[in-house]
Amino acid sequence: MNNSLLVVGSVAFDHVTTPSGNREESLGGSATYFSHSASFFCPVKLVAVIGDDFPQKYIDDLNKKNIDTSGLIRRQGKTFRWKGSYVNDLNEAETIETNLNVFETFKPVLPDNYKDTPFVFLANIDPDLQLNVLEQVKSPKFVACDTMNLWIDIKKNSLLNLLKKIDLLILNDGEAKMLSGKSNLISAAKAIQSMGPKSVIVKKGEHGSLLVYENDLFVLPAYPIETVVDPTGAGDTFAGGTIGYICKKGKTGFNDLKKAIAYGTVMASFNVENFSMDNLIGLTDDKISARFDELLKISSI
Amino acid sequence: MNNSLLVVGSVAFDHVTTPSGNREESLGGSATYFSHSASFFCPVKLVAVIGDDFPQKYIDDLNKKNIDTSGLIRRQGKTFRWKGSYVNDLNEAETIETNLNVFETFKPVLPDNYKDTPFVFLANIDPDLQLNVLEQVKSPKFVACDTMNLWIDIKKNSLLNLLKKIDLLILNDGEAKMLSGKSNLISAAKAIQSMGPKSVIVKKGEHGSLLVYENDLFVLPAYPIETVVDPTGAGDTFAGGTIGYICKKGKTGFNDLKKAIAYGTVMASFNVENFSMDNLIGLTDDKISARFDELLKISSI
Repeated sequence: MNNSLLVVGSVAFDHVTTPSGNREESLGGSATYFSHSASFFCPVKLVAVIGDDFPQKYIDDLNKKNIDTSGLIRRQGKTFRWKGSYVNDLNEAETIETNLNVFETFKPVLPDNYKDTPFVFLANIDPDLQLNVLEQVKSPKFVACDTMNLWIDIKKNSLLNLLKKIDLLILNDGEAKMLSGKSNLISAAKAIQSMGPKSVIVKKGEHGSLLVYENDLFVLPAYPIETVVDPTGAGDTFAGGTIGYICKKGKTGFNDLKKAIAYGTVMASFNVENFSMDNLIGLTDDKISARFDELLKISSI
Repeated sequence: MNNSLLVVGSVAFDHVTTPSGNREESLGGSATYFSHSASFFCPVKLVAVIGDDFPQKYIDDLNKKNIDTSGLIRRQGKTFRWKGSYVNDLNEAETIETNLNVFETFKPVLPDNYKDTPFVFLANIDPDLQLNVLEQVKSPKFVACDTMNLWIDIKKNSLLNLLKKIDLLILNDGEAKMLSGKSNLISAAKAIQSMGPKSVIVKKGEHGSLLVYENDLFVLPAYPIETVVDPTGAGDTFAGGTIGYICKKGKTGFNDLKKAIAYGTVMASFNVENFSMDNLIGLTDDKISARFDELLKISSI
């Protein structure tokens, strides 16, 4: 039986403006990006909430990719909406408007067939909800999670409690500095490691990522993309490729994580080349393999 | 006979303030950093100007490292002084004061024994002077150069003329964007390549560097340093290791350049761990090799 991967997070509609143009009512959300990305590596079980305005078509797209949507709950009201712009800086979204809608009262409840999932990704939601989901999983083999500046700011104790229970934290450079209080990224990653997780991945956008694993360090550049069309979801797509690969291999050692990060990097590079998850949905294993080889080539001596 | 490497640039005294402290009358200058770094790889021939205040001790230090100083001219007046601070940003110096002194009227004249040097590095000086030096070299095998925002701004035509005559331009990310008018670094490097040089290296500070060589691309992270004491001279030290290695091997292909950049990265990492060139002067081949291996390890899958 294949290992499977549980993800809890958001499903949303985005209104995105970038230097390449804009897209309204664009399918988004951390759990959606993560699921589509991870689905190229392993079966995915999705936990999220949608409103009554969410088209069946997108659920069909998920199911076609071996993504179990029995944990995708429909509630009365509107789906989560986010409006943002990358016009001034492709590396950082400027949030113009956030309407949580049905997401505001989201209390994830795992369907029974989700409860023994061995690999878990807690996408960026309130750390109390992340903890709550984790408590519903029987004996997970590997738990990774994401977070954001908001939770570091207003829910730090819950986040610190969560960090003691997970294997890997994935966060971006600004968040790593904020959480650790250190301006050097290696020092920041090590400080976060001492808060609990065996491994910490710091995402540096166009500059790639770094991994601290026990006493080892790994640094990988981003796959070079000349025209970034829409960076939305890059981090979740990266996480999807990374944890998806780990789940597929069923191994969580340093060398497995290194390769996993390269797959995460590849998935993120495809994603930013187009709006929404247009590129992810049309992707093939061959394209992923070819770009993985190319990433190794351009980063190897 | 060993290949040798000609460098023209500045020799200076710096007054540097960083988060780690400050250093007055600190030995600096592009040609000094470059020479000390390159001297671990090949014999160096230095062209620069100093004032009557420059201590013989520093010349002795250069000579001990197989750096020929017959092109280091002493003029009446004071040596070039630069005062800068990295207190707000370790990645970018804030210039507080520049006193060119004897450097202001510097007209480099190559001693006869310099004129057939096969490898040439034109450190960051007025591109008209870079062109003038280049004309004095008989038939160089490989010419690399650096530049800065000032020359891109006020001497662009001379710089463009120079670019047609060199093999490799090394510049930082901000300069690459400014010179090319492109915000994406890969696009910027390719655009600069189309101005003349076969190869372009873009330095990204703590994020490493990238190389565009013909149609190939190579990306290498920086060697991770937790405490950067003084970033002054990092770029010139990087160039010294890079071109020094190229000179030592006598080969200028893609694979040679990749390895060369790794050596440049290693040399720069040592340099930023201490003020001035204190670390470079005490360095050993064994330490360089060990860190080179470590850089390969942390950046390899």
